Amino acid sequence: MGSFKGHALPGSFLFIMGVWWSTKSILKYVCKKQKRTCYLGSKALFRWIEILEGIILVLMALTGMLGEQFISGGPYLILYKEGQWNQLIRWHHCTMYFFFGLLGVANILCFTISSLPVSLPKLMFSNALFVETFIFQNHTHGREMLDVFVHQLLALISFLAGLLVFIEFFTRNNVLLELLRSSLILLQGSWFWQVGFVLYPPSGSPAWDLTDHDNIMFLTICFCWHYALAYIIIGVNYAFVTWFVKSRLRRLCSSEIGLLKNAEREHESEEEM
Amino acid sequence: MGSFKGHALPGSFLFIMGVWWSTKSILKYVCKKQKRTCYLGSKALFRWIEILEGIILVLMALTGMLGEQFISGGPYLILYKEGQWNQLIRWHHCTMYFFFGLLGVANILCFTISSLPVSLPKLMFSNALFVETFIFQNHTHGREMLDVFVHQLLALISFLAGLLVFIEFFTRNNVLLELLRSSLILLQGSWFWQVGFVLYPPSGSPAWDLTDHDNIMFLTICFCWHYALAYIIIGVNYAFVTWFVKSRLRRLCSSEIGLLKNAEREHESEEEM
Amino acid sequence: MGSFKGHALPGSFLFIMGVWWSTKSILKYVCKKQKRTCYLGSKALFRWIEILEGIILVLMALTGMLGEQFISGGPYLILYKEGQWNQLIRWHHCTMYFFFGLLGVANILCFTISSLPVSLPKLMFSNALFVETFIFQNHTHGREMLDVFVHQLLALISFLAGLLVFIEFFTRNNVLLELLRSSLILLQGSWFWQVGFVLYPPSGSPAWDLTDHDNIMFLTICFCWHYALAYIIIGVNYAFVTWFVKSRLRRLCSSEIGLLKNAEREHESEEEM
Amino acid sequence: MGSFKGHALPGSFLFIMGVWWSTKSILKYVCKKQKRTCYLGSKALFRWIEILEGIILVLMALTGMLGEQFISGGPYLILYKEGQWNQLIRWHHCTMYFFFGLLGVANILCFTISSLPVSLPKLMFSNALFVETFIFQNHTHGREMLDVFVHQLLALISFLAGLLVFIEFFTRNNVLLELLRSSLILLQGSWFWQVGFVLYPPSGSPAWDLTDHDNIMFLTICFCWHYALAYIIIGVNYAFVTWFVKSRLRRLCSSEIGLLKNAEREHESEEEM
Repeated sequence: MGSFKGHALPGSFLFIMGVWWSTKSILKYVCKKQKRTCYLGSKALFRWIEILEGIILVLMALTGMLGEQFISGGPYLILYKEGQWNQLIRWHHCTMYFFFGLLGVANILCFTISSLPVSLPKLMFSNALFVETFIFQNHTHGREMLDVFVHQLLALISFLAGLLVFIEFFTRNNVLLELLRSSLILLQGSWFWQVGFVLYPPSGSPAWDLTDHDNIMFLTICFCWHYALAYIIIGVNYAFVTWFVKSRLRRLCSSEIGLLKNAEREHESEEEM
Repeated sequence: MGSFKGHALPGSFLFIMGVWWSTKSILKYVCKKQKRTCYLGSKALFRWIEILEGIILVLMALTGMLGEQFISGGPYLILYKEGQWNQLIRWHHCTMYFFFGLLGVANILCFTISSLPVSLPKLMFSNALFVETFIFQNHTHGREMLDVFVHQLLALISFLAGLLVFIEFFTRNNVLLELLRSSLILLQGSWFWQVGFVLYPPSGSPAWDLTDHDNIMFLTICFCWHYALAYIIIGVNYAFVTWFVKSRLRRLCSSEIGLLKNAEREHESEEEM
Repeated sequence: MGSFKGHALPGSFLFIMGVWWSTKSILKYVCKKQKRTCYLGSKALFRWIEILEGIILVLMALTGMLGEQFISGGPYLILYKEGQWNQLIRWHHCTMYFFFGLLGVANILCFTISSLPVSLPKLMFSNALFVETFIFQNHTHGREMLDVFVHQLLALISFLAGLLVFIEFFTRNNVLLELLRSSLILLQGSWFWQVGFVLYPPSGSPAWDLTDHDNIMFLTICFCWHYALAYIIIGVNYAFVTWFVKSRLRRLCSSEIGLLKNAEREHESEEEM
Repeated sequence: MGSFKGHALPGSFLFIMGVWWSTKSILKYVCKKQKRTCYLGSKALFRWIEILEGIILVLMALTGMLGEQFISGGPYLILYKEGQWNQLIRWHHCTMYFFFGLLGVANILCFTISSLPVSLPKLMFSNALFVETFIFQNHTHGREMLDVFVHQLLALISFLAGLLVFIEFFTRNNVLLELLRSSLILLQGSWFWQVGFVLYPPSGSPAWDLTDHDNIMFLTICFCWHYALAYIIIGVNYAFVTWFVKSRLRRLCSSEIGLLKNAEREHESEEEM
């Protein structure tokens, strides 16, 4: 961070994970509704996907931490130098990455060792988001108004996402909650890119005026539009996954069972009303 | 907005929807208590009402957005003009209308496509209210004290209403929660009118002193009286709907069944204690 | 208010209601545990007690409102006089009393008309407390530091009490929640007295220095001691009611049944662990 | 407090209790999962442990209160002296200790007298933490920025811990919630030590600059590292207790039953997925 690339990297990570998590939630929900657990729902495969997710999270966290420490004049693991703290901003970022890495570790451990409680990753996820909120809140002492504002928005959505994950911890398998959380993760990802464009405009364009109230007014609605964009991405994703499951898997499953289940499903959705 | 009419329009929209939602909640509750689902409770009719509600919401949102953009010197869809942002206040209002429009779209989709989760509109409703809160919070940079205060009250009630809808998302069919939420929507509607009268007094009367503490003190209790008014409207509505269902529908349903059900109902209400 | 008596009156009202509500909760809990519903638990009696409670609440609210309006130079129902608002502080107090009066009305209606939802009084109670919080928050514009502080504490406890009643609305018959709420009502009652002593010392003693930080520090712990006092009152009340139910009612109920129930109760309390 | 020792004492108390509470939670969870309640789960033993815990809490609170009152120039129970308040800071600390003492008393009473509700200690625990939050929030009027910051962090975690205990009050026997709460207690314990080192550096090293923004930035991440440390302690504790229960108790229980239960357990953990 402290540069365009430093904001684009976590933004991309969060965006990718947001898309993946929303896909996973929709896939689970649609499969469950169609009762076609024959292919995707097998427990062993599901477990491997979770472990893979954990490994990817750990790799992302490591990439972020190493990038912050060693690229373009980082602190090189030195915390205190010549009587003063050494590049604390980058240490802040490292700490955030570290807690997301812990989430990956929890994911791996939880699906490897069967005696651990299954909701552990949820808790670590919510903790990672709350730690991010906490650090962003204490991140911008003595910086410009607009700079503070865009970081406070990051803190706000990571707090809300953390709260949602904490609620998920209690009420499992609520697809709308999971999608809401994914939309906030997507929003955070695209907002990191926006912050990069605002604070460190690439390709040499002039920087924004950080003390202009109108810029804050614009970024307020820009934030809402990013959110609407996250909705649209999830909507398209939902339509695509539903279509994919219905059309492709129909051929694979035996068609008689499919028709049978179809009737059941319609009955069920009536009841749910 | 930015004028008396601009406040009266969303105020009227919210007030109408508040009255309608409270009527719907009471109707459902009273019918369920009387177990007279013969006429009103038929699922096809109920579905059409929901779709109609969605269409009306979309139309309201479109009216609001078009009014903000094209009436009396609006931005005409131009966001950035001559090196500065173009009428951001009106873009703010458009964004709020847009998210209420999304609620309408969600209502229509959810009751048309049966594979969507049934609580989706609740979630979009709560989101629309939270987005409204967020925008109102960042709406009044550099404006007068009283102006800020009345808008913060709008933010407060839209936040509370959003919170209530989010709770409804978890505990469905709690009539009191739904009425509480409707009362907050009614309050918001009548408060929009009040804000219009305070900031842009119609018929040429002199404006209020926006820096007087006494005016804030008065608007504080005025707000509570508006809330008491919302109570009274809902109370009268409740009495009227109950009387209507009892007296009118009694004739339509076969009277023997009516008496039977009546006995059951009394038994039930005893148990509930 | 605005005088010692004006603080002592609501303080006494709240204290009396706090003692009564805690007694009612304990009585219900102990009777239920002892399964001795023969005398106290009869539904008709219980209903009369609730209606009586409602009437008393309405009378208290009327006393308060009339006192604020007509005693020692009140506004005499005139809101706007000679180009400015007339004694808004007293109108604030009236509005608070009014919403507590509404709680009484809800209590009466709910236990008279059987078609109303049973949790309505809970909701009105929580609303009355939130309205109180809202008014206290906007009550002290431009007043001294210590004055603001003691009123903010009132707002804090009425908010917490409102929150607890709102939780009770969802999880009925949890004796500890009800006692916690009663303890906050008791605390509010005794704190009103404390505020009266601090701001309007009776018997001519000199007023407190309203700008001294040390006074805030002291009132912080004083507030905690008041809370500890509320605990003690509820503890003594609990011990007394338990002893009363056990010793007195034992004689009235047939003693054989008593022994039988006693054995059952012990068995039950084992299970609950 | 007001000295290094004054911070080290409550820090050690909290740390010890944090380790003990996490051990108790893990032990209960592992034993339940293994259905080996033969030795540890006996109700009489469990009750004695709880009473012992209560006695230790009371002793800790007494130690703290006596230390604050009588050691190195304390107030010696005098609250008001020579026209001004006497060492209110120390009275603040006493009040905090007192409410933790009440938790101990509640623990003893609740497991001695069987007619008391079982969740009473949870409620008193949450109250003790909220009272601590309240006092810390009003503790640092007119002190230096860094001093205020580290105390606000204490207030933050005691608030979060209080909230978690309040949630536990509703959803009993959720091991992850209990461990999360224990981790916050551990964090609070180690943070007290950190505060001692920052504000009153022992062994004569120079004090920290209390007005330096960089120090706040560092303490922000330092706080997160303390939290990561609390995770590690609980993780190691979990591994150790699981290993201990599995390896040691296996010998004591009859091995046939053990094998039987083992098969059941694996079946169960599959289901839980």
